[in-house]
Amino acid sequence: MSAPAPTTFAEIRKLLGELPGPGLKAGEAARAREAVLTKPPGALGRLEELTLWLATWQDRHPPRVERPYIAVFAGNHGIAARGVSAYPAEVTQQMVRNFIDGGAAVNQLSTLAGADLRVYELALDEPTRDFTQAPAMDEDDCARAIAYGMMAVESGIDLLCLGEMGIGNTASAAALCLALFGGAASDWTGRGTGIDDARLAHKTALIEAAAAKHRAAMSDPLEVLRHLGGFELAAILGAILAARLARTPVVLDGFACTAAAAVLHVLDGHGLDHCLVAHKSVEPGHARLLKRIGKRPLLDLDMRLGEASGSVLAVPLLKAACACHSGMASFAEAGVSGPG
Amino acid sequence: MSAPAPTTFAEIRKLLGELPGPGLKAGEAARAREAVLTKPPGALGRLEELTLWLATWQDRHPPRVERPYIAVFAGNHGIAARGVSAYPAEVTQQMVRNFIDGGAAVNQLSTLAGADLRVYELALDEPTRDFTQAPAMDEDDCARAIAYGMMAVESGIDLLCLGEMGIGNTASAAALCLALFGGAASDWTGRGTGIDDARLAHKTALIEAAAAKHRAAMSDPLEVLRHLGGFELAAILGAILAARLARTPVVLDGFACTAAAAVLHVLDGHGLDHCLVAHKSVEPGHARLLKRIGKRPLLDLDMRLGEASGSVLAVPLLKAACACHSGMASFAEAGVSGPG
Repeated sequence: MSAPAPTTFAEIRKLLGELPGPGLKAGEAARAREAVLTKPPGALGRLEELTLWLATWQDRHPPRVERPYIAVFAGNHGIAARGVSAYPAEVTQQMVRNFIDGGAAVNQLSTLAGADLRVYELALDEPTRDFTQAPAMDEDDCARAIAYGMMAVESGIDLLCLGEMGIGNTASAAALCLALFGGAASDWTGRGTGIDDARLAHKTALIEAAAAKHRAAMSDPLEVLRHLGGFELAAILGAILAARLARTPVVLDGFACTAAAAVLHVLDGHGLDHCLVAHKSVEPGHARLLKRIGKRPLLDLDMRLGEASGSVLAVPLLKAACACHSGMASFAEAGVSGPG
Repeated sequence: MSAPAPTTFAEIRKLLGELPGPGLKAGEAARAREAVLTKPPGALGRLEELTLWLATWQDRHPPRVERPYIAVFAGNHGIAARGVSAYPAEVTQQMVRNFIDGGAAVNQLSTLAGADLRVYELALDEPTRDFTQAPAMDEDDCARAIAYGMMAVESGIDLLCLGEMGIGNTASAAALCLALFGGAASDWTGRGTGIDDARLAHKTALIEAAAAKHRAAMSDPLEVLRHLGGFELAAILGAILAARLARTPVVLDGFACTAAAAVLHVLDGHGLDHCLVAHKSVEPGHARLLKRIGKRPLLDLDMRLGEASGSVLAVPLLKAACACHSGMASFAEAGVSGPG
């Protein structure tokens, strides 16, 4: 990791002033090479955008995806005790065990993508506070979770795919979005793991009440995170920051992961320029959130699992973009006629 | 190949009566297994649909994608001499050379996907006739092209990804769609490799004139193919038929490939049940065509290259679906609590 771990919000704010900008020269080199490859200009569509984006945020041409890394952060939420999920809170820990044992979806997908997977537990036996009653975290706990997330960005990786596991965390994500972007609680609240109408109404009411209770904190995105977020969501924010500092492009997963990222978007309108959103989740708040942060998802596969299952599916597409960019012949090399 | 090569349209029509139906038992086994894996029901979205589809059309559980095969058919079109493309007709042959030399996009993508790639040339020095002047093909040439496509389905493969190369073939595809589904020529005509407004208007007028000229043939989809299609498009139809007979699921590419497949859809409303459309092309007729044949594309990456570049990108997603389906632990195996 290229920066000392922050221990206060003040230190995190200081980091925001130090985020590197785009590697324009590498991006320009990618654009120039795309133009001579044996295809009509632009015919590879978003694959061409991906090489440009990778080159720009790796600050390297040609870009490469040879050491993708999957980081899944797991945390527990006080709000889970209020019946906002179809599953009991102990499933967070049980699924962490499943990740370690190799039995979850993300294990299969990471292996197939040739990506290293690591799971980061954030004090699973100490959930955040129920945010309808009190701020979810103290500042030092929240800052520590952010710093923990920063440590996930190992040296030598060339792509970071993020994900989360935390029973109750779509409630936390919805509360974050409501506080960051306004609107109605129902705009941001969805069925998560698959709750019924009655539970959805209950979840929506809790989120509305929590946002009202903590209204005074809402002018500051880090305070929003502290009041309504979760440890794993704070860690995701930290990982995104550290990746930017390390010139490592980031792939975001679904609703909870993107909601954590959105805290950084509101802090700095360019804070997520090095991030790609892998897919559009079924969770209805996700499409709304993507509009707010100006991101077009790469995939739309009706998924709603979390645990980086979406972000790891972007890896083959990013590898495909790099393979075409580096391996294709130019018109001149192949002796193919140009337009005319 | 599991059937003798047809040499007349009558023999092809006979084959249509012999197409096997779905492997319902294998599909049911896939559905039952998805239900016990460690995820909320349906949370893997379209990946779950893909395993069900693969199992059903491979007639095997668990389904697998271990030997995907990419077949690219190349043909030349008389209509290309009328200035409907941004590129000269010799680019078809030049790009075939590029495929053989490994310099095209599909080469990089096939290697990355672990898929064998083969390019099938259809008499490149003998283009079809200009369909504004005469039927593009005689029946025996068209039937021979279909039979040639049937030979592409080698034994032992478990997935067939199709693609085409043929300067002028989006004009042929647009004419096929207009004849098969009606509407206006402008509904189906697009910029292909990237033509300007004047050339687009010219292309549209030619397609309209061709459809009017051959109106008498339009009640029979095979006659539509003969009058307005191309050798590589006929071969694609043959490959789709042979794959069905061999219980090999098929992945279709963009507009030209899907238009060839649509001939079979109109012949038999269930004829494409074993086919998946990999992506939605930028070519505007493709989205319209997908609605007509009732297919939802898997990807939407603004691509418009052809040459199976889209269909091969579906391979990692299909492999991902199989990996999750076969590799994930069940709730019971992992000791994860169910809903409640």
